Amino acid sequence: MLEIKRLSLAEAAILIEGSRRKADELGIPMCTAVTDESGHLITFERMDGGKVSSISIAIDKAFTGAVARKGTHVYNQLCVPGKGTFGIHVTNGGHFSIIGGGLPVTVNGTIVGGVGVSSGTADEDLLCAEAAIDYFRQQTGFAE
Amino acid sequence: MLEIKRLSLAEAAILIEGSRRKADELGIPMCTAVTDESGHLITFERMDGGKVSSISIAIDKAFTGAVARKGTHVYNQLCVPGKGTFGIHVTNGGHFSIIGGGLPVTVNGTIVGGVGVSSGTADEDLLCAEAAIDYFRQQTGFAE
Amino acid sequence: MLEIKRLSLAEAAILIEGSRRKADELGIPMCTAVTDESGHLITFERMDGGKVSSISIAIDKAFTGAVARKGTHVYNQLCVPGKGTFGIHVTNGGHFSIIGGGLPVTVNGTIVGGVGVSSGTADEDLLCAEAAIDYFRQQTGFAE
Amino acid sequence: MLEIKRLSLAEAAILIEGSRRKADELGIPMCTAVTDESGHLITFERMDGGKVSSISIAIDKAFTGAVARKGTHVYNQLCVPGKGTFGIHVTNGGHFSIIGGGLPVTVNGTIVGGVGVSSGTADEDLLCAEAAIDYFRQQTGFAE
Repeated sequence: MLEIKRLSLAEAAILIEGSRRKADELGIPMCTAVTDESGHLITFERMDGGKVSSISIAIDKAFTGAVARKGTHVYNQLCVPGKGTFGIHVTNGGHFSIIGGGLPVTVNGTIVGGVGVSSGTADEDLLCAEAAIDYFRQQTGFAE
Repeated sequence: MLEIKRLSLAEAAILIEGSRRKADELGIPMCTAVTDESGHLITFERMDGGKVSSISIAIDKAFTGAVARKGTHVYNQLCVPGKGTFGIHVTNGGHFSIIGGGLPVTVNGTIVGGVGVSSGTADEDLLCAEAAIDYFRQQTGFAE
Repeated sequence: MLEIKRLSLAEAAILIEGSRRKADELGIPMCTAVTDESGHLITFERMDGGKVSSISIAIDKAFTGAVARKGTHVYNQLCVPGKGTFGIHVTNGGHFSIIGGGLPVTVNGTIVGGVGVSSGTADEDLLCAEAAIDYFRQQTGFAE
Repeated sequence: MLEIKRLSLAEAAILIEGSRRKADELGIPMCTAVTDESGHLITFERMDGGKVSSISIAIDKAFTGAVARKGTHVYNQLCVPGKGTFGIHVTNGGHFSIIGGGLPVTVNGTIVGGVGVSSGTADEDLLCAEAAIDYFRQQTGFAE
């Protein structure tokens, strides 16, 4: 029998808060989503003024971070015509995101969820996703 | 130019909290979604143990409450074979929910958003959606 | 070679106007769509306050009226469990509407387009679709 | 409670007219769509001879202009293999357009809707979208 580690709602809410703090600092109202290790949504928030088109993008980034197990910005660089991974952006019913801002959330080397951020540039989105994870580590004490 | 009223994230979070309180009372881990008046997601949470299949159902219920402007349980009774509204459950790309637990959120007679709850029976889901709105009115002082 | 008769944009606009006039009379802000004889959208309008969920429903009703060649209310009565047509409401990628308010537009016995109306009850929607066609006949002089 | 500004149907119709005037000048029968600030369709017209494939493209361009808040031609230049935004063209269920001809409609710095034009080249489509907004400003007196 497998034993699975999975983010709780309370832990997911910490990730959202970490993203929001960085978004406030950047002055960009972000959409942030957190999924469990299976890619299913735990919690989501769109800050006042966040883009409507970023709702599904943030959710897709969190999904991809959790289940494809790499940052979406990594896939962005792999998914270039002529490289072997090209085409992955249209898989999974269009929910495989290759735009930076999606990250796996690990605890002791195990992926326990994913976080995805959207509304800024891919670089700004990634900053917020990283800040979410930093804040999560700081608040929970969990190691990578 | 039209002037539209829309729930803020802070107000949407109150609706989520109201649903969670009732869910805790019922002992059922619920999925709760809040959309704006145009049906776009503002915030979502799945309580620990909430059903994966209820993620999209809660979001669809909130969407329907906001944009179709009736409780989803009302459409449930209208959408019966032989009645004129039968068939509405397959419209809007399958996102039109006719399962109880979705309600419009009104302020002074205007719809400003929608709330949708899923994981229990339709009746339990509706209880939580109603509790969300009661709590919202109590905390904000906004009239129906 | 086939010779096809098809509504022009100017004629489609007359249908929209006929629907709007009846909608104004009823005091219900409607969504109205007009398609060509192939079911492709020619023109659409959502009156101020028309339902967001009715945008696609109006378009689907016009499509169905044009290409399935019956009023959508007729299919509503045929599409009942146990009757041979049951199931037609989930065909065509979910775009086959069986809710009253969609009608074929005929000229001299030939279907030249479809009109679909949504935002009220199915009966109110049908009243507006019929009014659209009445107004079209009155303004253009075309016979059924 | 947020206060949102949204195009009325009458204002949306002015945008359509502005696009049509430029289309007539270019001699290209265009499809033009106008959405509200949330990306939902307000009005649409396909000029006699406009392309069937451009119906959904025009609607998607207007959606994208409104909710992603940049001209679709801007996304076209950002969405190139190897750049961070590559992949955005397959998001939002395939409705995120990166083909020129979609623009946000702003009033006093706030996005109140989107306009999308399709049937010509991307450059011709963009000319018509720009003409739609110019005509809108001229007729309504609204500032950018």
